Amino acid sequence: MNTSQNSFVQYEKDAVYKAIFSRRDVRTKFLEEKIPGSVLARILNAAHHAPSVGFSQPWDFILISDMKIRERIKHSFIEEFQKSVKMLESDQERQRKYTSLKLEGILESSLNICITYDPNKFGPFVLGRTSISETGVYSVCCAIQNLWLAARAEGLGMGWVSIISNCKIREILEIPDYVSPVAYLCLGYVSEFENTPDLERSGWLRRLNLENVVCYEKWRVHQSEQWSDLKDEIARTDFNNKGK
Amino acid sequence: MNTSQNSFVQYEKDAVYKAIFSRRDVRTKFLEEKIPGSVLARILNAAHHAPSVGFSQPWDFILISDMKIRERIKHSFIEEFQKSVKMLESDQERQRKYTSLKLEGILESSLNICITYDPNKFGPFVLGRTSISETGVYSVCCAIQNLWLAARAEGLGMGWVSIISNCKIREILEIPDYVSPVAYLCLGYVSEFENTPDLERSGWLRRLNLENVVCYEKWRVHQSEQWSDLKDEIARTDFNNKGK
Repeated sequence: MNTSQNSFVQYEKDAVYKAIFSRRDVRTKFLEEKIPGSVLARILNAAHHAPSVGFSQPWDFILISDMKIRERIKHSFIEEFQKSVKMLESDQERQRKYTSLKLEGILESSLNICITYDPNKFGPFVLGRTSISETGVYSVCCAIQNLWLAARAEGLGMGWVSIISNCKIREILEIPDYVSPVAYLCLGYVSEFENTPDLERSGWLRRLNLENVVCYEKWRVHQSEQWSDLKDEIARTDFNNKGK
Repeated sequence: MNTSQNSFVQYEKDAVYKAIFSRRDVRTKFLEEKIPGSVLARILNAAHHAPSVGFSQPWDFILISDMKIRERIKHSFIEEFQKSVKMLESDQERQRKYTSLKLEGILESSLNICITYDPNKFGPFVLGRTSISETGVYSVCCAIQNLWLAARAEGLGMGWVSIISNCKIREILEIPDYVSPVAYLCLGYVSEFENTPDLERSGWLRRLNLENVVCYEKWRVHQSEQWSDLKDEIARTDFNNKGK
């Protein structure tokens, strides 16, 4: 029995899983409704309470509502998208499917947020970052996921635009060279959340079975007698995932 | 008004924020109690439902209970820790504080999990990864944060061990060169969760004010008349954070 303080009762666990499973990468169905300051402060505070290596909190959140800035960002998306379409020239069917997808909501969403990584914050000695320097930017990604889940709970759709030039983002948002843009996000209330990811629904890719991503004691070892109880549970989970 | 399906009622929102704010990076107070397979399957499934660039699901979760493997990992921690202590030789006070901290729970925790990034999964053309290749590993970090929050809701403490050699992890867990170890995690039931992060409580670093990490339209622009409503909300949030 877990006897810790602050334990979660069943409905609280259910709510956490609901946020995790119903979170979507949103690019369509944004509404015009503005995000109230109180909601925005709550989700930013959630992001700011992410784990960070050595408690370095290396993130900055740039909120962008200015349409002139967003139009410049959109221009970078269009340029990068055109480059990516060319990469599929040898596969016409995939290229057709790819170009039919909506991949960003820069102008339609209520708000854009660029999240950056500053390796110099509280440096140069950052506790826990001495052997693996990438753990700094990994902390920023944890903050992004906190933001995403808090946004979902608040009824806000969020989409990550990654077909974009970081060089252009730096120039447009006046980010110095030593700081890395990590994510460019579009947020807003939406008319509905889809039940499954866009790329699964459109047949771009399928969700892998959980059993194929869980390994026992060594990388890509999927067979183990010692772990047979867990393997049964995972088989049940995969069965339930299919039913969703 | 947000009219989306699957909206969250107040107690569900509260539960999501509770998980986010009460999650800790845990290195002490692990109990011997084993993690049931059903709980483990649920939290791994939560991790597997993270967002991923182009739905590439580039993660693998290596579960490690074998104590011989864990002892080899612990040995790598000790080596890397000794190197890091040397880096603080010019600052004796900080060095003393640093060496007094408990920074891992490799042997005491119930389970270790290594999470890896495989850039070849569903490649070479991964939708959305054509301009910024790092988005692949960023997806793995989102999975880590999902795992962390689900674990917290289940009453499981989790700690990220980053003072470790990825080269040694590759060797010990037989991970091929093209795959990157991203995180080495220790999980288990704990006697209690601390109210504040260890590094804040011990006076290593303080939490930044939210107002200092939120920028308006451009990087590190903290003043803006246009955003005065939000700035007021953030000031209120910072006041509440101090009271915690």
